[in-house]
Formats: sequence, C-alpha cells, structure tokens
Amino acid sequence: MADLQARPGEDKRPSEIPAIRWEEPPEGPVLVLLDQTRLPAEEVELVCTDASALVEAIRSLAVRGAPLLGIAGAYGVALAAARGFDVSEAARSLESARPTAVNLSVGVRRAEAAHHAALVDTGDPTVAATMALAAARALHREDAEASARMAAHGLALLDELLPGGGHRVLTHCNTGSLVSGGEGTALAVALAAHREGRLRRLWVDETRPLLQGARLTAYEAARYGMAYTLLTDNAAGSLFAAGEVDAVLIGADRIAADGSVANKVGSYPLAVLARYHHVPFIVVAPLTTLDPDTPDGAAIEVEQRPGFEVTEIVSPQVPVTGAGGGVPVAPLGTQAYNPAFDVTPPELVTAIVTEEGAVSPVTAEALTELCARARRAAGGAGVLP
Amino acid sequence: MADLQARPGEDKRPSEIPAIRWEEPPEGPVLVLLDQTRLPAEEVELVCTDASALVEAIRSLAVRGAPLLGIAGAYGVALAAARGFDVSEAARSLESARPTAVNLSVGVRRAEAAHHAALVDTGDPTVAATMALAAARALHREDAEASARMAAHGLALLDELLPGGGHRVLTHCNTGSLVSGGEGTALAVALAAHREGRLRRLWVDETRPLLQGARLTAYEAARYGMAYTLLTDNAAGSLFAAGEVDAVLIGADRIAADGSVANKVGSYPLAVLARYHHVPFIVVAPLTTLDPDTPDGAAIEVEQRPGFEVTEIVSPQVPVTGAGGGVPVAPLGTQAYNPAFDVTPPELVTAIVTEEGAVSPVTAEALTELCARARRAAGGAGVLP
Repeated sequence: MADLQARPGEDKRPSEIPAIRWEEPPEGPVLVLLDQTRLPAEEVELVCTDASALVEAIRSLAVRGAPLLGIAGAYGVALAAARGFDVSEAARSLESARPTAVNLSVGVRRAEAAHHAALVDTGDPTVAATMALAAARALHREDAEASARMAAHGLALLDELLPGGGHRVLTHCNTGSLVSGGEGTALAVALAAHREGRLRRLWVDETRPLLQGARLTAYEAARYGMAYTLLTDNAAGSLFAAGEVDAVLIGADRIAADGSVANKVGSYPLAVLARYHHVPFIVVAPLTTLDPDTPDGAAIEVEQRPGFEVTEIVSPQVPVTGAGGGVPVAPLGTQAYNPAFDVTPPELVTAIVTEEGAVSPVTAEALTELCARARRAAGGAGVLP
Repeated sequence: MADLQARPGEDKRPSEIPAIRWEEPPEGPVLVLLDQTRLPAEEVELVCTDASALVEAIRSLAVRGAPLLGIAGAYGVALAAARGFDVSEAARSLESARPTAVNLSVGVRRAEAAHHAALVDTGDPTVAATMALAAARALHREDAEASARMAAHGLALLDELLPGGGHRVLTHCNTGSLVSGGEGTALAVALAAHREGRLRRLWVDETRPLLQGARLTAYEAARYGMAYTLLTDNAAGSLFAAGEVDAVLIGADRIAADGSVANKVGSYPLAVLARYHHVPFIVVAPLTTLDPDTPDGAAIEVEQRPGFEVTEIVSPQVPVTGAGGGVPVAPLGTQAYNPAFDVTPPELVTAIVTEEGAVSPVTAEALTELCARARRAAGGAGVLP
C-alpha cells in the first residue's frame, strides 16, 4: 500500500498488519482503520472524517484492543481539532465510547491536554491541532516501542519459568498487531518466542461471543507462520488436564492498583484452571493499562454488551435475519448475560509483564514500585500512572 | 399431533417435546426423530426406514444425548429386524456410530439380545422382531421412569445442599426431554425445582461448538416457562465470582468405575470453577451410564470431532460457503482441536444422582454398592451394570 510510508511509530516488516493510520489527503485529514469486524474474510478499511465516526467504530469493535483504543482516542481528538470541531466535546464522547479500557481515556486526555496547553500558550487553533496530532503520534510510537520491550521481557520470563523451551502457550482474545501501535502485548511475546524458534504450539481460544481468537489471532498467527491450533473456549480445560499447556499469556484492559486484571471474558476461568494445574498465568500489558485510581477488582466497571451477540451469530458473511444483525441461534426472546470482561484477582496472576519489566508476585506494592521506577526513568515527566 | 398416542413410555403433558417415536404405517415400520440440528428455528422430523439412516442421524447429531442414544439404538435394531435386514450387522454399525456414550451400546445390545433369544427359542424371525421392539419399548419406558426418579432424587439433594431454596442452577449442554424417553437428567432436576417454585434462575451455557445449550436447552426452558438466561461458556466464571451460582447440574455420557465422568466438553472447567468457589457440582445420569468395564477416566475414549465445527459456524439458517457446511470464521487452513467430551475426576464431583438415589462422596465402592442395591431391587435380572 502506497500510504504505508505515512504511518508513524512502526517498522515496515512485510508481515505487519496495519490497524490504524493518519492520512492527510487534500480534502482534509482522516483516520484510517482496518475494520476488524470484517476479518479474516476481508481486509476493509474504514475512513473516519470526524470523532463521531470513530466513536461508532469503537462501539462496533471495528477498532478494539486496549492499547490501540488509546492511540485511536488520541488521533480522534487530533482529528476533531484539525477539522475545527469542539475538542472537549469530542474528547468526552470518545472517552465514554467504551467504559472498561483505561487506555482509551488516557489517550484521549493526553491529546486533549496537549491541545489545551498549546491553545493557552499560543491562542492559535492550528498550532493546538498540530500539538494534538503530535501527542497522538508520540503515543503511537511509544506504544510500538513498549510492545517490543514487553515482548523481550515476556520472553525472558517464559524462558526463566520454562527452562525446557518448546513452549506451548495458550492465549485468549486478540493481543497482537491489531490491538497495538506495534506487535501487541501477549501475542507479541508468543511471536518473539516463535522468532527464536522456541514456540512449540500457540493454542488459540476462539473467544466467544465475538470470536476475536478465531477471526483475529488466528489471522495474525497464520500471517506470521506460527504453529497454532484453534479451540472452543471450553476445550481449554481438556488441554490443561492433558498437560498440553505450559503457560497462559493474556493481555489486560485495566489493571487495578491491587493487581486485579480486567480482561476479555473467559480470562478468569483460565486463571482458575491454570492455578489448579500449576501452570503460569501471565498478563502482558503496557503501564498505561495500570489504573491507580481503581483500588481493586470490585471497583472495575465491567461493560455489559447486548444480548444479541450471544443469541445471534454475527459475522460479515452471515445474512441478517435477527434483530441484532445476525442469525438467531436461540429461541426468540431469550435473555442473555453478556459481560465483555471478567476480573482476575492478583493471587491468580503469576506475573504482570510491562515494558519496564515483570512484576511477580503481583502486589500493590510491587506495582507502585514499578511505576515509580518507570517515572524516574522517564525523568518524572511522563504520563505514567 | 395425531400420532402422539402411538408413543410409548411417556405421559401426555402439553409442554412435552417428542424426541423419538416408533410408527407402523402401511408401508412398513419407521423410526421418527425430531431433527435436533434444526432447532430452535424449525421443528422438523426425520423418518428412518433402516438402521443406516439412523446411523447417519446419530453421527450428524440429529438425535443425541446419552439416554436417548440408547433408546434410538434399541429401536434401530428393532427396525432392522422388522424390515428383514441383518440384525447383527445393523447392531455393530449402530454401536460404533459414536464412541463415547455407553448407553448407545447398552441399548443396541439389549434389543439384539432379545432378538437373538427369541430367534433361538422360536426360530421365527417375526416373533424375534416383535421381541426386539418390545425390548426397545421397555427401555424407552424405563428411561422415562428413571427420569422421574432422578428428578425426585436430584431435587431432594438440592434442597438438602441448599436449604435456603431459590436455587440458581448452572447447566451445560442439553439434558432434557430431547435426550431422554422422559424429561431427561440434569434438566429434569431443574424442571422439578421449577415446578415446585424453587428454581430462581437457570443459567444456560451456550455450549460451543454446536450450541446445544443455546439451541436446545433454551428451547426446552422457554417451552416449560422456566426463568432462564443464556451465556457464553466462558462467562460462567464471572457468575461464580459474583456468587450467582448455587449449584452446577450436568448430565454424563459415560461414568467410569472410579466415578470419573465423561460429559460434553466444557464440563471439566465448570467442575474446577465450582470447586474453587465451593459450589456443589452434581452429575445426573441413569445407571446405564455407569460403565464398570471402564476402570477410570484415562480409559475413557473421547470422541474427536471435525475441526470445521470450530472453524465454521454451522446453523440451519446460515448459508453454506465453507467446506464443512457453514460460514468460515477462521482463516482458511486453520487447524482445530475439537474434543466432544472432557473427563471430570471423581474428586471434583460432589454427587452422582441416579434413579436409585445419589452417591456422595463419589467413590468406586459407593458406585459398586449402588449398582448392587439396584440389581437386588430389580430381582437380579436386569441389564444394570
């Protein structure tokens, strides 16, 4: 694609999967997203010309994944500024598009703060818009760098925990290039192991209801040439029982101050299974996922999504016959319980891997110390928690 | 339906769901099955005129569920006999249609033994065919009676374990009228609680990959007017964590001599979650599910089903675009791990409820004693293990 050169904060590997990019055609700046709801069948791009289109893309999960939501949110603010919309209104609407991922709010506020500071200093909306975009690009670049460092720390931890090599790793949802400015979080660690010839098998949970594992992680794994096998979420128990899982690697949407991890629904059952089978359960997430304002798991707001995601099968190739846009698989009128996330308490998490290193065991004190170290390394000026 | 009167071994409640019946139209006897692959969208009947059609119906899961497979297998032998086919050949082919459910084999052999004995005694194939049919009808009737007794024993156990009442029960797969000559196993217990006004909520796991929970259990629960809520299998963890599950009720496809329980994949993770959360995990199954010839869980053969059940969404209303008859949701060439069952060790099972009462704790000795008691009650002449 000719416009690949325009993409900030990333290198240019052929296997790379572009999830988001900023473009400036003559008719005005746009944010271009790979529509993740259409994968793996079609690679279709969504072009957002204003923040409300981006809000819709976030809500429909066309763009998703905690770190990428932060980047998208920041670009959304930059887009509102560049197009002359009300930046504060756009920021509030972007921030509330999805409630659980703290990164979204962090990204939005970073671009908004840069915009606000420049406006106060110069009084020039064009300069302020430029600064908002610079903040978004910086976040994008930092996220790519953080991915690479998480991958290195995560692989070192895997090698330490599993000295035998030939790792068989189970993962849930999608945590690769499609959620990140770089190669992702948990999947970046598995990819690093693959590149070093130390990944024996990637077990991919399909991740109901939206099948991000089947649709997105399998898509990335296939593109990277990883040895992967897909399974229904409920078949993971059989793999653990058969001794076929050496480690679980997942991402996070929000990590509370006590180390409680909110992640895609189905993560908590894996944590319980991993504990029962003495298998390491490793969370990989950038420091922006840590939310010191959320004291513990009980304080994490878990997004409840519409029941039709469960009662209907929604897929781009499936004809619409139900009210939710898919094919009904349950009797009409069936009520569904559909939390998007669950919360794993710190005592079930073997380690949290960040770009600044791993924390194990996971405690509030260890996380606070990691953040303090990161702030010192950043010269005390960063946006770290 | 006018032919309801022809159905053996059941009462005539309006909410009743006919899963199987024997008919004798002028052109010869047939076995009529409710095609469970078409539910809940359509109530379509499959008419089998020979055993090979029934084998195909068993393989495609048009007829399924451990007790019903036994009944179907017995009728299949009767059908072969009545139509003048080779009974022994039909029996072997029926027996091997699916490997895990012991009931299938038990049902087939019972009708075959009745046929063989009558043929030896009388030399008259017509009498032998009549005796095979009588054996199938008897099994059908006994299964309906066993359902009613399991429901009573199971409800008594629930009331004992949960004296507060207002039971919130989680179930997996489908274990109701659609798997039985009566009202089923685990779902029959929940239904008994519902009729007594003591069921506060039935949590229905959708049960990937074939969605028997969404398609069949929700269908039965809706017909019975139960308060039910559907969830993805991986959302059960959130319910346990929130204290919303008082008991897990599941069926079984085979129970080994040591009390290991083979049941629909996803049962074992529920057992681990139930243990972690101190919630009773109760298996409801007729004595025919007990297999004394299988010493333990490791000796249970677990059926591996085709990968397309995971890589494609297969539903009667979904157009066929993939090789497996559904819509692909994973990249082409994706390999899937798709065990139909998993095995829960006896130490994770709070109780096994049978028509002869409950066993708790679950040990080889307690199961042996239960079977001995059942044999004594049956006058030592039954087909019990």
